[in-house]
Amino acid sequence: MSKKVKKIGLMTSGGDSPGMNAAIRAVVRTCAYYHVECVGYYRGFQGMIAGDSIPLNARSVRNIVNQGGTILQSARSKDFLTEEGRKKAAENLRNEGVDAMVLIGGDGTFRGGQVFSKEHKIPVIGVPGTIDNDIFGTHYTIGYDTALNTVVEAIDKIRDTASSHNRLFFVEVMGRDAGFIALNSGIGAGAEEILIPEEDLGMDRLLDSLERSRRAGKTSSIVVVSEGDKIGKNVFELADYVKENLPYYDARVTVLGHIQRGGRPSCFDRVLASRLSVKAVELLLDGKKNLMVGMMNNEIESCSLDQALKGKHNINKDLLRISEILST
Amino acid sequence: MSKKVKKIGLMTSGGDSPGMNAAIRAVVRTCAYYHVECVGYYRGFQGMIAGDSIPLNARSVRNIVNQGGTILQSARSKDFLTEEGRKKAAENLRNEGVDAMVLIGGDGTFRGGQVFSKEHKIPVIGVPGTIDNDIFGTHYTIGYDTALNTVVEAIDKIRDTASSHNRLFFVEVMGRDAGFIALNSGIGAGAEEILIPEEDLGMDRLLDSLERSRRAGKTSSIVVVSEGDKIGKNVFELADYVKENLPYYDARVTVLGHIQRGGRPSCFDRVLASRLSVKAVELLLDGKKNLMVGMMNNEIESCSLDQALKGKHNINKDLLRISEILST
Amino acid sequence: MSKKVKKIGLMTSGGDSPGMNAAIRAVVRTCAYYHVECVGYYRGFQGMIAGDSIPLNARSVRNIVNQGGTILQSARSKDFLTEEGRKKAAENLRNEGVDAMVLIGGDGTFRGGQVFSKEHKIPVIGVPGTIDNDIFGTHYTIGYDTALNTVVEAIDKIRDTASSHNRLFFVEVMGRDAGFIALNSGIGAGAEEILIPEEDLGMDRLLDSLERSRRAGKTSSIVVVSEGDKIGKNVFELADYVKENLPYYDARVTVLGHIQRGGRPSCFDRVLASRLSVKAVELLLDGKKNLMVGMMNNEIESCSLDQALKGKHNINKDLLRISEILST
Amino acid sequence: MSKKVKKIGLMTSGGDSPGMNAAIRAVVRTCAYYHVECVGYYRGFQGMIAGDSIPLNARSVRNIVNQGGTILQSARSKDFLTEEGRKKAAENLRNEGVDAMVLIGGDGTFRGGQVFSKEHKIPVIGVPGTIDNDIFGTHYTIGYDTALNTVVEAIDKIRDTASSHNRLFFVEVMGRDAGFIALNSGIGAGAEEILIPEEDLGMDRLLDSLERSRRAGKTSSIVVVSEGDKIGKNVFELADYVKENLPYYDARVTVLGHIQRGGRPSCFDRVLASRLSVKAVELLLDGKKNLMVGMMNNEIESCSLDQALKGKHNINKDLLRISEILST
Repeated sequence: MSKKVKKIGLMTSGGDSPGMNAAIRAVVRTCAYYHVECVGYYRGFQGMIAGDSIPLNARSVRNIVNQGGTILQSARSKDFLTEEGRKKAAENLRNEGVDAMVLIGGDGTFRGGQVFSKEHKIPVIGVPGTIDNDIFGTHYTIGYDTALNTVVEAIDKIRDTASSHNRLFFVEVMGRDAGFIALNSGIGAGAEEILIPEEDLGMDRLLDSLERSRRAGKTSSIVVVSEGDKIGKNVFELADYVKENLPYYDARVTVLGHIQRGGRPSCFDRVLASRLSVKAVELLLDGKKNLMVGMMNNEIESCSLDQALKGKHNINKDLLRISEILST
Repeated sequence: MSKKVKKIGLMTSGGDSPGMNAAIRAVVRTCAYYHVECVGYYRGFQGMIAGDSIPLNARSVRNIVNQGGTILQSARSKDFLTEEGRKKAAENLRNEGVDAMVLIGGDGTFRGGQVFSKEHKIPVIGVPGTIDNDIFGTHYTIGYDTALNTVVEAIDKIRDTASSHNRLFFVEVMGRDAGFIALNSGIGAGAEEILIPEEDLGMDRLLDSLERSRRAGKTSSIVVVSEGDKIGKNVFELADYVKENLPYYDARVTVLGHIQRGGRPSCFDRVLASRLSVKAVELLLDGKKNLMVGMMNNEIESCSLDQALKGKHNINKDLLRISEILST
Repeated sequence: MSKKVKKIGLMTSGGDSPGMNAAIRAVVRTCAYYHVECVGYYRGFQGMIAGDSIPLNARSVRNIVNQGGTILQSARSKDFLTEEGRKKAAENLRNEGVDAMVLIGGDGTFRGGQVFSKEHKIPVIGVPGTIDNDIFGTHYTIGYDTALNTVVEAIDKIRDTASSHNRLFFVEVMGRDAGFIALNSGIGAGAEEILIPEEDLGMDRLLDSLERSRRAGKTSSIVVVSEGDKIGKNVFELADYVKENLPYYDARVTVLGHIQRGGRPSCFDRVLASRLSVKAVELLLDGKKNLMVGMMNNEIESCSLDQALKGKHNINKDLLRISEILST
Repeated sequence: MSKKVKKIGLMTSGGDSPGMNAAIRAVVRTCAYYHVECVGYYRGFQGMIAGDSIPLNARSVRNIVNQGGTILQSARSKDFLTEEGRKKAAENLRNEGVDAMVLIGGDGTFRGGQVFSKEHKIPVIGVPGTIDNDIFGTHYTIGYDTALNTVVEAIDKIRDTASSHNRLFFVEVMGRDAGFIALNSGIGAGAEEILIPEEDLGMDRLLDSLERSRRAGKTSSIVVVSEGDKIGKNVFELADYVKENLPYYDARVTVLGHIQRGGRPSCFDRVLASRLSVKAVELLLDGKKNLMVGMMNNEIESCSLDQALKGKHNINKDLLRISEILST
């Protein structure tokens, strides 16, 4: 049986995502609700190693539910990959009286947390926060929905100019290993083609499809390309190849970049972050450890960090079919 | 066995919702993809009775995926409640060679469609489009997610001024019979209290809670009130009662009103509308009838219109608990 | 000759407006740039009377340039209308070593500041911050441009639903004494009619115009109504009157309310707030007093508080003509 | 004396900008108001040469006031640089009975229009529509204000992630020859440095400034770079140089690209476009020709196309000083 948790630590790690502040707020307020102390560590594992922390009470997190980024800041930590780094972090937690940690982040965060927890017997619960949605054990990660809205709004703007000039636009979106953002934003924005890492359709199919679009009377086209797409070496080469082969197209490239990580979280992400984080604290108070909370089928569930790390969250390939039908 | 469907009719009915145009586009493009004719009726059942229709092809629906409202317009029809009205509609459909209908709307739309289909042997499929999310058989209706974002953006703005002036704001949101919008937007906007039709907490509890907030050091507060809330007769009376009993509060009322129905659909609503509508057409082509398509657990499913109309989509009452914890 | 200013006080007063935080930031950073101390008073004159202040340095105002509301909060103060209240404020300022004040607000703020300055020989400079734009001596007040964007976005949403349902919408916007918001947002939103305090067109003309719109083939209409409009007693009565006389219209009312005060400031308002506030501090450092800074013809100018208070900023009546032409 | 104008042609040319549709609507409605026929040419000079036109009446332009892009599309035309091309265009206009043209666009558009008008005695009026704001004879061009808002919203998002990760971001914005967008959006977004074509501050000053920012306690920084900036060959080289010399900075680059051209126009741009376009038509009806309309000191004025083309619209260099003060 675990001893009773009296003080919970909290950090955000990895790439920041919209809704992380809503998650921080929910962790802090849930601690306050259950009369448990709460302390935040800055810059993820880095702050745990450096002992860079701040006590947080219910009033510390006012007016942040709607802010992008993370007030606790985030970082990737090389030191935490070493036994020595993790030992230092554990000492700092013990010195502050922290009994358990809530870790908000992605795969790398959970991997670090798992090793740390096993070595130092400090219970951790992971909360999935990343715009990439590539975490097993949850249908949605915090920030993903907001990123989709940011991307479709950007493509809506690009569509204005594409339509006005009869142009072909290649729009690169985030997603090095997974096509979630590309696939869903591509359907949402009415893209003519969507290129994702999970499917290498080949250059020829792309040319065919663009050629077909033109014959069908489309005078402008949007191709959404995931960072990790396999067809071209990168989006600029892709555009060059198309320009060479379909010279009647005035092709342009836009790389959306870091605007996808920021911005006010959508209502969906705020509610998701809130529900996951309340659950994370309640699990710790209930003596649970080394779990990740997730939303499966609209319910808040949990799975072991082990499962979360070993499993793979696959895209719904039926969406590729939907995209093809809709670009008729 | 049903005869093969060659021409599909399409309409939007009831209160409009963001994403209806994405649904229209998806119905039309899916018809084009399967080489089936498609015709749109204006103003819902009214247009079917009046024979007010327009042939739609893949190019007719360009650049509407991101537009609010419905290009086919919407209306509530008294005439369709009469046998004679429905008979006239059926004649018009037969004259145009329309074999089956896709009906985009809410409860009232499906009820009309069900009667019509039984009387005149014309297969119909319902697509749930309403901001209220109060339809059984789908976790999400088209437009609900966008409405939530519209509401939290509005409350974010009100929060700016509430915080600057130490005020208490009562914000009335849509939802005559169901608290979905109030509950989720309230959590998303960090409201201190949420009043919904499903729960009559009583005036005393509200006063207690506001009193407690103030003592906890909160200098401004937001109370989100569903139209159909049972505590006060209406939001203005509610505010007056609070002002009388808690005179230190400078209480104000904002009724968000019709801005909640409009606006560019969120990515979520566009993808949802697209997936549901592709499925609706495919079901008709597959000989199915009198079903409603819905998204259950992230998958597109269908149930009978009968089930959809008899069932009740309940709010997740756990969210009330979450809200209470977060307003600590 | 005035003695050298070494410490500048700062407050925001009256209704808050988007861009006030950008103004606060600019005052504080300009003080830092010129190595002058800066202190902020909370809740306008109230905080001056209560001695409720906070020292502000360049880092205190990070990341607020894009926030709505005012971090110094705002209030209307009855106590400051009394000699005693103002005396108390002057004592507090002297005790803190504050030599001069920057007052961000509207008419009421400047009136209070003028009396205060005369009584207590403390130089003040006014910075016009109000969404109403009704200040003489500046073409634009801080927050007005943002409010216009908020209003047109809201009306764009209402237009979606108006077009979908063939409805007539009356949209009430802020502006008790001046029609700036109604007139400009009405043109921006493509309103069919605009009713402002400066012009009582009479009910008959409104009915005529709506009747004409309908005959011209317009199936939906938006009427933007300034709070201070003189035709009806209020917007609800106005709508009722139109419904009685033009029964074919399905008329609805939306009161936009406090969302108009909040929200992230537009680029225009941020730049305006920055330029005005830099100038305000530089004027004080230059020994000037009892002036209001303003933007006239794209240049930052100043006039006496006296002029600002006695003058009247008139709407450009040519815009009424433009509106009539455009609603053809 | 010019003969009476009975039919006005209209086109949009050059890079599209938000508000062009509001301008189109205003031209068309003003023609309708004065009972003059109106015809739109597609794709600028290209459509005039090809005789690709559409008659436009008051109802043709409904619901476009809030749409980005241009319903008449835009293009750059090489053929119009030839005498033959222009002759063909003039013949088409005469065949359609078009007496005069309104040209919405930038420098290139006006240059073409001026030559055309002289050769073929067809009066033209230019309406300045470009996001770059680099037109002499108007303080604001249509689309500029919207582009500024798009840029500051994007940088606000980047700021979220920059602050969360202690990063340095280089954000490239449009403006090959003029720093209007960079300078104003940079101040609006609170950028630490702004690099524009008009000022080559030199690499050393940039390094000094960033170094100073860091010592002043700033943990993240935004540098806004105009496309046409002269310091580095391009923004990527600039970032590389900084990384080499200030290795403690985690520097990133974002090129905002074409999202700056699209999007719903701000209220400012809609009103500006409306006022300029009403004036353009009224000048033609008044027998005027070869003028450009502009907004100078909040009033609608006009100057000769010659002046507009020969003059230079300079940035307000005082804004560089403001920027330096505010990044203290």
